[in-house]
Amino acid sequence: MRELFQADLKALGDQLVEIAGLVREAMEKARTAFETADVELAEAVISEDARIDYLQTAVDEKAIELLALQGPVATDLRAVVGALRMSSSLERMGDLARHIAQQARRRYPDLAAPEPIRGDFRQMADHCVAVATEVEKLLATHDMVHAQAIVKHNVAINELHAKNFKTVNSSSWDASGATTADVTLASRFFERFADHGVSVARKVTYLATGEWEPVIEVD
Amino acid sequence: MRELFQADLKALGDQLVEIAGLVREAMEKARTAFETADVELAEAVISEDARIDYLQTAVDEKAIELLALQGPVATDLRAVVGALRMSSSLERMGDLARHIAQQARRRYPDLAAPEPIRGDFRQMADHCVAVATEVEKLLATHDMVHAQAIVKHNVAINELHAKNFKTVNSSSWDASGATTADVTLASRFFERFADHGVSVARKVTYLATGEWEPVIEVD
Repeated sequence: MRELFQADLKALGDQLVEIAGLVREAMEKARTAFETADVELAEAVISEDARIDYLQTAVDEKAIELLALQGPVATDLRAVVGALRMSSSLERMGDLARHIAQQARRRYPDLAAPEPIRGDFRQMADHCVAVATEVEKLLATHDMVHAQAIVKHNVAINELHAKNFKTVNSSSWDASGATTADVTLASRFFERFADHGVSVARKVTYLATGEWEPVIEVD
Repeated sequence: MRELFQADLKALGDQLVEIAGLVREAMEKARTAFETADVELAEAVISEDARIDYLQTAVDEKAIELLALQGPVATDLRAVVGALRMSSSLERMGDLARHIAQQARRRYPDLAAPEPIRGDFRQMADHCVAVATEVEKLLATHDMVHAQAIVKHNVAINELHAKNFKTVNSSSWDASGATTADVTLASRFFERFADHGVSVARKVTYLATGEWEPVIEVD
């Protein structure tokens, strides 16, 4: 029973890794779509998000089945509840990659981010791809070095988000309302994507160490 | 054992109602702070959000304890897992009310929403307070009439959100970058607040009927 349960728990973990891989791919494609106004790639991200949603539901059903049939306690219970929560964070990350792709599609053939702020967005997107890559590795290995990397990328993203906000708020900013709205939302989407990455990092850290480090407010 | 569990489950439900009440109060205050640039009320929303976060953690710990000690199955299990998820939605609603309060505080003594769009924001905020009120009633009574009301308010909010987006994207929009960023984010915060309300409505409906109606995409 116990061995079977461990096998089930491992399968649940593998499913999370699979979703994380799809989220990473989604963010990689969304980045390129956003930076090059590649509308076909944007469409791919948008349509492929359904697969992430489907897999999240599968993880949740599997987790609930494990709770019902195995009645796990202590560490095992927290692992199953953790999987439920992480699947929810990963699903949101997929949604946010989709939102970025949708912005790229909406502004096609223009680029969503205007020239003066494009470099900052490039950095933000690179950090978000890095967050997704580290989340996938963290879930696959449970090596805390990846949790720390996620937190570091998130700090950089928060700084870029604040910088974008300052840019848009400065008196020299003269872009249209449409562009300003795009920039504001895109920056928020990237920032939220990374927040959810930190949320996954916190859960894995907690499951591995019993400590809520890295303590970072995620909202 | 079974009776004790039912009492525990009821206590868990009562805690969710308590959180929902605090979320409603937060949105009521955030609305007034946003509409009247009342910085003290904004401060209250911001500081009181910690209480919602605390209660969410309490619900989650209680739910995990119930899973560990009672090993519930079937409907009872889904009720406990549902509580875990609903507490997460309510906590996010509290965060979003706080974000709206933070916008009011940042623009003080100015109003965050400029004149041409103020009426639409007033409607949005009213619908959000209504969503919060219906969520509280739904959790207290499990009467599906409140779930339906939440969905209706959400439809209205989505329409106002689209209208705001159109306004900001129109050629006649000539507000500053700062104002445009505020309006864009505030509209998104209200819209997300209602989405989480729908998410709670879906979970309660599922628990009560076994059906995923009202089926509305929440992301």
